[in-house]
Amino acid sequence: MTAKNAFYAQSGGVTAVINASACGVIETARRHPDQIAKVYAGRHGIIGALTEDLIDTSQESDAAIAALRHTPSGAFGSCRYKLKSLEANRREYERLIEVFKAHDIGYFFYNGGGDSADTCYKVSQLSEAMGFPIQAIHVPKTVDNDLPITDNCPGFGSVAKYIATSTLEASFDVRSMAKTSTKLFVLEVMGRHAGWIAAAGGLVEDHGIPVVILFPEIEFDQQRFLARVKELVERHDYCTVVVSEGAKHPDGRFLAEQGTRDAFGHAQLGGAAPVVANLVKEALGYKFHWAVADYLQRAARHLASRTDVEQAYAVGRAAVEFALAGHNAIMPTIRRVSQQPYAWEIGEAPLAEVANVEKFMPRDFISADGFGITSVCKDYLLPLIQGEDFPPFENGLPKYVTLENAPVPKKLDTPFEL
Amino acid sequence: MTAKNAFYAQSGGVTAVINASACGVIETARRHPDQIAKVYAGRHGIIGALTEDLIDTSQESDAAIAALRHTPSGAFGSCRYKLKSLEANRREYERLIEVFKAHDIGYFFYNGGGDSADTCYKVSQLSEAMGFPIQAIHVPKTVDNDLPITDNCPGFGSVAKYIATSTLEASFDVRSMAKTSTKLFVLEVMGRHAGWIAAAGGLVEDHGIPVVILFPEIEFDQQRFLARVKELVERHDYCTVVVSEGAKHPDGRFLAEQGTRDAFGHAQLGGAAPVVANLVKEALGYKFHWAVADYLQRAARHLASRTDVEQAYAVGRAAVEFALAGHNAIMPTIRRVSQQPYAWEIGEAPLAEVANVEKFMPRDFISADGFGITSVCKDYLLPLIQGEDFPPFENGLPKYVTLENAPVPKKLDTPFEL
Repeated sequence: MTAKNAFYAQSGGVTAVINASACGVIETARRHPDQIAKVYAGRHGIIGALTEDLIDTSQESDAAIAALRHTPSGAFGSCRYKLKSLEANRREYERLIEVFKAHDIGYFFYNGGGDSADTCYKVSQLSEAMGFPIQAIHVPKTVDNDLPITDNCPGFGSVAKYIATSTLEASFDVRSMAKTSTKLFVLEVMGRHAGWIAAAGGLVEDHGIPVVILFPEIEFDQQRFLARVKELVERHDYCTVVVSEGAKHPDGRFLAEQGTRDAFGHAQLGGAAPVVANLVKEALGYKFHWAVADYLQRAARHLASRTDVEQAYAVGRAAVEFALAGHNAIMPTIRRVSQQPYAWEIGEAPLAEVANVEKFMPRDFISADGFGITSVCKDYLLPLIQGEDFPPFENGLPKYVTLENAPVPKKLDTPFEL
Repeated sequence: MTAKNAFYAQSGGVTAVINASACGVIETARRHPDQIAKVYAGRHGIIGALTEDLIDTSQESDAAIAALRHTPSGAFGSCRYKLKSLEANRREYERLIEVFKAHDIGYFFYNGGGDSADTCYKVSQLSEAMGFPIQAIHVPKTVDNDLPITDNCPGFGSVAKYIATSTLEASFDVRSMAKTSTKLFVLEVMGRHAGWIAAAGGLVEDHGIPVVILFPEIEFDQQRFLARVKELVERHDYCTVVVSEGAKHPDGRFLAEQGTRDAFGHAQLGGAAPVVANLVKEALGYKFHWAVADYLQRAARHLASRTDVEQAYAVGRAAVEFALAGHNAIMPTIRRVSQQPYAWEIGEAPLAEVANVEKFMPRDFISADGFGITSVCKDYLLPLIQGEDFPPFENGLPKYVTLENAPVPKKLDTPFEL
C-alpha cells in the first residue's frame, strides 16, 4: 500500500478546542508516514478544497502542531458554507473529488457539526460511485452539543465551564452590590436551538446562587418569569438570569427581536439580555446589569475544560486510527461508560445516523417550572467541565500559535465559482 | 497602650481582588493582637457602620480569611452610598464616630475609589475635632485605575489581563470566520470616564491583531472611524473594535444612547457595542458579532493578574502597618521603581491630595489617530498584567469562599435613617 495524503478541514463556528482535534489528527498522521504521506488542510474549511487552496501542514514544526492543542479558534480558517444536496449541486461534490484526486488524497477528515457530517457522508458515497474511493471520517465539534449518538460534543465542555464560572463570578459581584445597587444580573449565552450552554449556568445553584435559566426549549412565559425573579430577589436580595440567545416568545419570535427602532426608524439588532433586563426593570424596578458573552465564551481557551481538551484530541486521533483501520463514513463518538467516577471511551457512529439529526435538551434535564436544571442534568454536565488545562502564558497573555499555513502548489489550477 | 478594634469596609464597585486587600488587612491585624483586638467589617460597606450592622471577622477561620485572597467580589458586601459633605450632612459623620466610639474602634480602613478616599479623609478630620481620634487609612481599589499619585490601582491589572486575553481570543475566532462570515467583532468594556480598560485591548496589536480602540477621552469621529475599520478589513479581512462604555459623540452623548424606542415608544437602554456594530454594518456591510463584558470583566478572578493580587494584598497589609506606625489620613500607593525589569514598592499619599482627583489617560498613551495605544502606554500596562494566580478549582469550578459574616452585638441600637 502506497501512502496517500489526507485532507483535513474545519467547518462552521470554531471553538476553544477544535484545534486540539486538528492536533490529534496531524500528530497521529505523522506517526504513520507509511500510510499517510502529508496532511493537507483546507484554507477556510471546505472552500479551500473547492478552490484548490490547500495548506501543507507538513511545513509546520512539531512544536507548532503541538501548540494547536492549547490554541483556540480555527488555525486553518473555517467557513460557513453548506454544500447543497447532491441533486441540487452535484458539481460541487465532483469538484471536491477532482481536487482530492489531483492531490492524491485518500482520507477526508471533516471537523464540524451536523451539516459537515452530512457533507462528509455524501463525499464518501459519491467518491465510491466515481471510482476514486475516499475514506471520509467526521470529527465532531460543536459548542451547541447538539450532535446525536455521541454523549457530548468536543467544544461544549469548555463553553460550559466558562459560562458556569462566569455566572458564578458575576453572581458573587451582584450579591456584593445588591443592598444599594444592582439586584439583577442577566447573562446572554449561545445556543440558538438547544439550551445546553444555558443549562451550564444552572450549575451555580449548588453554590448558593439564585438563578433563573431561559431555555430555547421552553416557551417564554413573561408573568411566570417575573414572578420567579421577584420571589428570588425577595428571598436573596438579588438574582441572576442566564438567557439563551434562542429563547422565544410563545409566538415564535426571539426575545432579542423587540421591534426596537432607532431615531431613523430602522429596526435595531439587540440582544436578549438587555431585553430581559429592561423587562424586569419596568415591571419590578430592580437596577440591573447585563452581559453578552458571544465569542468570548467559545474562544475562552484560557479556561478550557481538561476533559474537553482530552476528548477533542482523542476524536482527532481516533479519526485517523479508524481511517487506517479501513473504516469509512463514520464519526468517532464519546461514550460515557461510567458516571461515578466518570469514565469515557471512544465509540463509533455511522454518518448515515448522524447527519442532519439535532439533539435537544431532554425534558427531564429541565426543572418542572422550566427555569432551572435537574439533578440528572447536573450529573450529565459536571464531568464535562472537570479539570483545568491552562495554556502557557507569556508576558501576561496566553501564548497561542499562528501557523505558517504555506500553500500546496496547485495541480489543477482551474477556477471554481463558489 | 490597650488594643483597639479596627473597622474595615468595602466601597463602590467590587473587583476580582478587593478581597485580597481585605485578606491583607485582616491577616496583618491578626499578627498584632496587642494593638488591634478585632477587625469589624461593615455589612454592605459604610452603611454597616451607619446602621451599626457590623461583622465580627474574628469568628472566621484563618483558612476562610486566606481564601479571600483568591475570591472575587466584596465578601462583606459593598455599597454605592456617598456621604454628603460635612456641611450638608454633618450628622452622618457624627454617627460614624458614635458607632466607632461605642465599639472601641481606633482604626478605620476604607477600601474604595475616589469618593471613599474623600469620606476617609473627613472621618479623620472630624474624629479629631470630636475628641475621639481615629486613624483613617484609605485602601485603594478601582478597576477604573483613576486614582491619582499611585502608579496604578489594585483591581485594574486583573481587568486589563481579562480584556486583553478576551480580545485576543475573540480576535482569533473572528480571523477564523472572516472568509465567509463575521468580519467585525466589537467588545464593550467598562470605564465611563477614563479609557484605561479599553487601552488594555490595544495590547493584542503586538499579537498581529488589527484593533481599533474607542476611548472616552477621544471624541467619536464617525467618518474617520469607519475609514479606519474599512482600511483594516481590506488589509486583514477582519477587524476588532474595543469600545469603552464611556465613548461619546462630539455633542457629549454616549454612543450607547442611540435614541432607540421599543414598540411602545419607550426609550431603550442598550450598549455601545451593538450601536457601533450596527453603524459599521450599515456603512460597510460587514457581518458582525459583539459582546458586552460588563461584570464578567471585573469579577474574573479565575484570570487575575498575579501582580495585581500581590499589590492588592500589599496595600491591605500596608494600611495596617501604617496605622500601627501612627500614620493617619493617608493611602498606601504603588510606586513603580523600575520599568525593566518591573519593580514596585509601597509608597504613601496624603488623603488631602487623593480625594476627588481623577486620573485620565495621558494623551501620549493614545496614538496620534486616537484609535490605538502607544508604546509608552504598552510599557505602562504590560507589567500590570504579568503573572497568573489561578484560584483552586473543585469539581470543575473555582472554589470561592462565602464567609459566615456573624454580626457584632449592637451597643447603641439606635435607629439611623440613611
